[in-house]
Amino acid sequence: MRIDGSAYRTIWPEEDGRAVAIIDQTRLPHDFAVVRLTTLEDAAHAIRAMLVRGAPLIGAAAAYGVALAMRADSGDTGLERACATLLATRPTAVNLRWALERMRARLAPLPEPERVAAADAEAASIADEDVAINRAIGGHGAALIRAAAERKRPGEPVNLLTHCNAGWLATVDWGTALAPVYAAFEQGIPLHVWVDETRPRNQGASLTAWELKHHGVPHTVIADNVGGHLMQHGQVDLCIVGTDRTTATGDVCNKIGTYLKALAAHDNGVPFYVGLPSPTIDWTIADGVRQIPIEERDGREVSELTGRTADGRIETVRVTPDGSPVANFAFDVTPARLVTGLITERGVCPATRQGLLGLFPERG
Amino acid sequence: MRIDGSAYRTIWPEEDGRAVAIIDQTRLPHDFAVVRLTTLEDAAHAIRAMLVRGAPLIGAAAAYGVALAMRADSGDTGLERACATLLATRPTAVNLRWALERMRARLAPLPEPERVAAADAEAASIADEDVAINRAIGGHGAALIRAAAERKRPGEPVNLLTHCNAGWLATVDWGTALAPVYAAFEQGIPLHVWVDETRPRNQGASLTAWELKHHGVPHTVIADNVGGHLMQHGQVDLCIVGTDRTTATGDVCNKIGTYLKALAAHDNGVPFYVGLPSPTIDWTIADGVRQIPIEERDGREVSELTGRTADGRIETVRVTPDGSPVANFAFDVTPARLVTGLITERGVCPATRQGLLGLFPERG
Repeated sequence: MRIDGSAYRTIWPEEDGRAVAIIDQTRLPHDFAVVRLTTLEDAAHAIRAMLVRGAPLIGAAAAYGVALAMRADSGDTGLERACATLLATRPTAVNLRWALERMRARLAPLPEPERVAAADAEAASIADEDVAINRAIGGHGAALIRAAAERKRPGEPVNLLTHCNAGWLATVDWGTALAPVYAAFEQGIPLHVWVDETRPRNQGASLTAWELKHHGVPHTVIADNVGGHLMQHGQVDLCIVGTDRTTATGDVCNKIGTYLKALAAHDNGVPFYVGLPSPTIDWTIADGVRQIPIEERDGREVSELTGRTADGRIETVRVTPDGSPVANFAFDVTPARLVTGLITERGVCPATRQGLLGLFPERG
Repeated sequence: MRIDGSAYRTIWPEEDGRAVAIIDQTRLPHDFAVVRLTTLEDAAHAIRAMLVRGAPLIGAAAAYGVALAMRADSGDTGLERACATLLATRPTAVNLRWALERMRARLAPLPEPERVAAADAEAASIADEDVAINRAIGGHGAALIRAAAERKRPGEPVNLLTHCNAGWLATVDWGTALAPVYAAFEQGIPLHVWVDETRPRNQGASLTAWELKHHGVPHTVIADNVGGHLMQHGQVDLCIVGTDRTTATGDVCNKIGTYLKALAAHDNGVPFYVGLPSPTIDWTIADGVRQIPIEERDGREVSELTGRTADGRIETVRVTPDGSPVANFAFDVTPARLVTGLITERGVCPATRQGLLGLFPERG
């Protein structure tokens, strides 16, 4: 997508062939900084310290990390060390493991002198495939936005609501939930996005708002509490969110608070869609609320908040009383009955086992 | 209620007879500071700058403000000036106007030399009546909490969830939504309160958590996004919230986000109660969603946040990108169909016109 008119991905090989560049997402929205990664350790740090985040982007960054490692040591020891180091950065990330296993499978059989070029090519494929999946999600979802636009008065924008950041910053490009927004925007459909700030980590306020603003997409940041009121008053035509894990029956595990928006959408007859690349479907699980364990994170994400002061310093401030306990559940599960449809790279389907199997018959 | 063992109200006359004391609520939760008001201007500033907030407390503060004004000028001009100055501090506050009209009606007929003593007595009555109403709400609501406790295993705490601050800090004492919590706590019923932080102004994290902590009530602060997840997993036995305005049909206008919690409670079979003093009932309105205008406040309440740094400085930080628009709707309306019951000073009733008229037949 674009940053003030220039096209970017979230990760790309530098022209000198010696480095990979990323956007340091920890410094957004206040500071746009491109960081050059030249070593395995650079790549591991970028993932561990969340300079890059979002499952698809983590996978691509790990793949490029292996490619950087091959430049220093393309032997079997170097390959194993690279995979082990990168895997340890975010142990629960599914895409991380998948990307590393793919890199190892591609490189291990090759003679050492061929590994650098093959690693570069394989990392580029992983990145390109992510972009292709997301572009396809965008195309299918844009048709839904176009249909909503046709139900409005000419020129009146379609109002979308999204939660958290499932935008291009979470992927290599396009995003998942936001791919349809970008695709519709490219098609000239008038639209406006309500951006939930998404407490406690504020990915909506800090990342989604930033990427929409710099691409030029009209949007407004709101507190997470506001969506229900907007839907009661006809101010939301369509919700689109992402997902970290989707059950074979269409239950959606996504950032905490997604369920509350789905309830409000259901109560007000607002369509609620989920954009998802098919690798996030967990075909082994049927009941999301009962079967998906919900990560509890450090309470300081709730009690403390980081931002920029009027004179430009970055400060972290505490907002709760000393001694008040805090709980920090990171995700919730939206039951399939509240989901209007799933937007996958193969098309849109109902949030049901039958619906998913219609698009992915090989899973039947 | 108590602050670390000592009983407090939010406003009280000082023993020297020359001042009224308040708690500066703008400095909570990081700093407990009692401020002495000695003049009309002190009182007006305290209301205008929100050192005191919450409709019942604003009313009491205005009444005491008139009493302070009488000390400087007990003539008719002084009385009119006091009422006009105080009324202008928060023009939309219903209790403010009501308290000032009551003070004027009491004082205007009196000879000047009697006005100081009469003003003191009338302000004290207004404060005492608020306390009595809230104590009654507490008693009726505590019975609901006791009933919930009897459905649990012995000793297992009743888990309540509340939104915003409708605690004793918003009133003269006891609070409205929290009065039942304090009453049940005094009765020795084991309980625990989930405190929504309540973005964007964070009244839950800064005020509700502070008052529960200092009174000794077990509680946990959570992001506003969390309540639905907790209810899905049986972690909430009862919701109790306050209200700024209740329709004659039982629709509840309260802090933004209340509606989302009511939806989650309804979806999970969790009782959802509203604590309200009867003066907040607007008997002229039947459809809250259509008829109650929702205040839009300064977007900086969303984009900026104030707290305390690790080394003790109070700083305000920006959390959204420069140039991203922000919207700040302050309230939403929860339709009566989602409300299990209304806890008033006369008892608990269904959130219906019939229910309310059963308790307030004089309004029929």
